[in-house]
Amino acid sequence: MPFREALKGIVESVEGGLGAVIMGYDGIAIEQYHRDDTGMDLNLMAVEYATVIKEVKRTVEVLDTGEMEEVSVNTGQTRIIVRAINDDLFLLLTLHHDGNYGKGRYLLRRAAPEFRVTLS
Amino acid sequence: MPFREALKGIVESVEGGLGAVIMGYDGIAIEQYHRDDTGMDLNLMAVEYATVIKEVKRTVEVLDTGEMEEVSVNTGQTRIIVRAINDDLFLLLTLHHDGNYGKGRYLLRRAAPEFRVTLS
Repeated sequence: MPFREALKGIVESVEGGLGAVIMGYDGIAIEQYHRDDTGMDLNLMAVEYATVIKEVKRTVEVLDTGEMEEVSVNTGQTRIIVRAINDDLFLLLTLHHDGNYGKGRYLLRRAAPEFRVTLS
Repeated sequence: MPFREALKGIVESVEGGLGAVIMGYDGIAIEQYHRDDTGMDLNLMAVEYATVIKEVKRTVEVLDTGEMEEVSVNTGQTRIIVRAINDDLFLLLTLHHDGNYGKGRYLLRRAAPEFRVTLS
């Protein structure tokens, strides 16, 4: 499936890439690609973060400072980068804490408009 | 007051800096410095984002992937960068959308341990 190939391409192009998912704000994944050897439940992570991202989106709308574009959360072990695709869907990339954050941001910024066109 | 001076130093050292605040996860500010000419209610923004940051912290604890270190949210008009100080407090910097995000991240990463020592 082309979405899965695109997600795999992103994960494997970035140092420390663990997984990527196209997900709705309702926490339901459209497509995902996770490396097998991460030792983490990346599916659970995506679902849990979906709840947070939905809350961020709500806050951004209340504050009226433009559309939500990107959210990132760095913890002791992981970095997640979220890029909005459209009003229903977002792209979430999970990296190791020492993964290439700048490249991950760049790849999502580049991929989001392509997904937007294909998914609309 | 030294905290306010430190916050002012951060805001004025970064291109596009609008304001900075030391805040509790309960949404109550300890100290803040906002530029006067922003045309934005930076106080309201900090309070609204405090609710989100508290939710991020809860999610990170559930997922058990290490402590929450940094959160950022980019919208059409602004960027916010949050750095955890300790279990009760965080540092929030607001930038223009085209502000220097990398420098903002660097200044918070450098300042947080100093605030941690002073506030403990």
